[in-house]
Amino acid sequence: MGNKVRIGMIGLGARGKGLLETAYLEHPDAEFVVVCDKYEDRCQEAAKVIEKSGRNTPKMVTDYKEVLQMPDVDAVIICASWDMHVEMCIEAMKAGKYVGCEVGGAYSLRECWKLIETYEETKVPVMFLENCLYGRDEMMVLNMAEQGVLGEIVHCEGGYRHDLREEVAFGKENRHYRLSNYIHRNTENYPTHELGPIAKILHINRGNRLLSLTSVSSKAAGLKEYIKEKKADDKVLSNTTFNQGDIVNTIIKCSNGETILLTLDTTLPRYYSRGFTVQGTKGMYTEDNRSIFLDGEKSAEDHFEWKKHWGNVEEYRDKYEHPVWKKYLDAGVKKGHDGMDFLVFSDFIKCVQENSEAVIDVYDMATWMSISVLAEESISMGGQPIAIPDFTSGKWMNRK
Amino acid sequence: MGNKVRIGMIGLGARGKGLLETAYLEHPDAEFVVVCDKYEDRCQEAAKVIEKSGRNTPKMVTDYKEVLQMPDVDAVIICASWDMHVEMCIEAMKAGKYVGCEVGGAYSLRECWKLIETYEETKVPVMFLENCLYGRDEMMVLNMAEQGVLGEIVHCEGGYRHDLREEVAFGKENRHYRLSNYIHRNTENYPTHELGPIAKILHINRGNRLLSLTSVSSKAAGLKEYIKEKKADDKVLSNTTFNQGDIVNTIIKCSNGETILLTLDTTLPRYYSRGFTVQGTKGMYTEDNRSIFLDGEKSAEDHFEWKKHWGNVEEYRDKYEHPVWKKYLDAGVKKGHDGMDFLVFSDFIKCVQENSEAVIDVYDMATWMSISVLAEESISMGGQPIAIPDFTSGKWMNRK
Repeated sequence: MGNKVRIGMIGLGARGKGLLETAYLEHPDAEFVVVCDKYEDRCQEAAKVIEKSGRNTPKMVTDYKEVLQMPDVDAVIICASWDMHVEMCIEAMKAGKYVGCEVGGAYSLRECWKLIETYEETKVPVMFLENCLYGRDEMMVLNMAEQGVLGEIVHCEGGYRHDLREEVAFGKENRHYRLSNYIHRNTENYPTHELGPIAKILHINRGNRLLSLTSVSSKAAGLKEYIKEKKADDKVLSNTTFNQGDIVNTIIKCSNGETILLTLDTTLPRYYSRGFTVQGTKGMYTEDNRSIFLDGEKSAEDHFEWKKHWGNVEEYRDKYEHPVWKKYLDAGVKKGHDGMDFLVFSDFIKCVQENSEAVIDVYDMATWMSISVLAEESISMGGQPIAIPDFTSGKWMNRK
Repeated sequence: MGNKVRIGMIGLGARGKGLLETAYLEHPDAEFVVVCDKYEDRCQEAAKVIEKSGRNTPKMVTDYKEVLQMPDVDAVIICASWDMHVEMCIEAMKAGKYVGCEVGGAYSLRECWKLIETYEETKVPVMFLENCLYGRDEMMVLNMAEQGVLGEIVHCEGGYRHDLREEVAFGKENRHYRLSNYIHRNTENYPTHELGPIAKILHINRGNRLLSLTSVSSKAAGLKEYIKEKKADDKVLSNTTFNQGDIVNTIIKCSNGETILLTLDTTLPRYYSRGFTVQGTKGMYTEDNRSIFLDGEKSAEDHFEWKKHWGNVEEYRDKYEHPVWKKYLDAGVKKGHDGMDFLVFSDFIKCVQENSEAVIDVYDMATWMSISVLAEESISMGGQPIAIPDFTSGKWMNRK
């Protein structure tokens, strides 16, 4: 492998510690020289995990600004609470540290623009660590789309359909930031798992762009019911009104005429799904029954009896598996969200080693994160359509 | 059975003739005294179908107003082109004929209001023949919702996901009205299969109502591609621009805080689905993999591995099958859209025999049909939220 990359990990809650344990410490070129969290016990736990991998004990600090001042840190990975992501990215760029940033939505358009402006001044790359771009099905469907198998792409759907009631309701106990978001905001608060893979397929910011959105939220009933059942002794939460609606649907219009439907669905009982769906003039893929429908194929005659083709995505593996996944399967898929975490981290390490531009760059990051801000505006005004800024300032037409 | 109902059938294209053949002639109390279509050959074919059932040969007329003047007609069924439905209903009410009207969307709010006004003046009932309310899964889920098994209902989805490319593109040959709609309009042109079963579950117009919608359409690429492949010799269609986008998503907000997502998806290659989904605070049903997820059940532990529970709706049949369907299964399910056509027709016949109010009444009809008009407005204004009129003028709060 290449030269070692000396990393500072910032933010060591469930996600940060989990990433270390299941994915990052599998990478031979990743060194962890410092771990940082505002809670000391989290630093100590993370340090133990790193030691257990046979690596040196990292330094431990509680102020992320210290990490940015360390000369032996090449890159930082930010896994802090959502509301700190952009601020930390900006500071890191100014300090000249290559940044890998965990996903979340933004809180203001101004912070998205500051991200862009800081990048354009410093030219220090930021990679947005959107793991779902590396999902096996997502990459296979991308491969099919690039080969034209699905025809002209017309509509895509993505969802973050994940029952987080326990995580939200036990936010105080777990020192987790979701709780305060669900109390105070009502928006598409976690858009990038949904949008990222679709943005790649639709060439967003590279020949296409997001133009506008409209977003509508249901009532908030799921957490109330959950707390009544599971946490009735918590007097504060029992009397808390949650602003966050259970289901938020957002429809985005793209400049090439495609539509994207995003669904946030995190506070009702349900099975997990990213609701990934891609429809084109020659065929479609849908995640919920994991099937591919191609126009003109023999199986298409069963369109009224599609049940027999549920799960048929496996029949297309050999032909359309993405080359990255072919290689990954040969090498041995690592743990961490079905192997996605290791793939995005590997690309990050490679980008740092080569000092090349991030494969998921600051324009993607600002665009995808801005959906949270814009959906909040739209919902608050009853589904009003809202313009999505062009963070590339016109360069999307010719960017590759 | 009861007394015979003497029916005039108006409109005998594919749908009208199909209904006769597969469902209506199965009913022992239905007499067909007259058939009417502006094309004589269709009348003759329908008459033959009726004769084949052992019934008397019906009269044949080409002007529907003649049907309305016949004293031996108790009720009319309207299966004409979409743009004639409301006009014919109004004339029929004025003539004192009980009306059964096939589904479609409206073209103006004014025609929806005229429907209401005519009913309130004449008190002649109109039954909207929305067959999907009688779907086996739809009725079972309704039953579960009414029993509280799904908790408080928060969000529902419906789709008309049906590849109609051939039907639309061969509209001239088949004298079918969809073609001109797809050329000239861009809207949720067929909302009621999607919305009807949901409206029932959410008690729309009976304690709840539709408040507003926002609707966004994708580009129109599917028919263009289809015509290039399958109808390249049709010079007119090859040079026709279709206004109708391939995918239209509409999000409706209800007065009790629920959201409804409707999807029209009729001009891309795909498997058939009505995309019926119901989510509540205790569980959900989803059509695409035909599964039920109930909070706290053993199977819910597999929420990350839900594939093993695809199709598990069958495990809940015995417990939650709707009584209407239990009886229907014992009596023998008739053909016609999975048996739905016979059920809605039976209810219609019963209402006429008892001269009782229609089970799907004129307020439902106007409300559901108005979605086409309102979606067209919203789409044309980039997804602008549009108010949905209260066709009950406040009576929805106390109607049963």
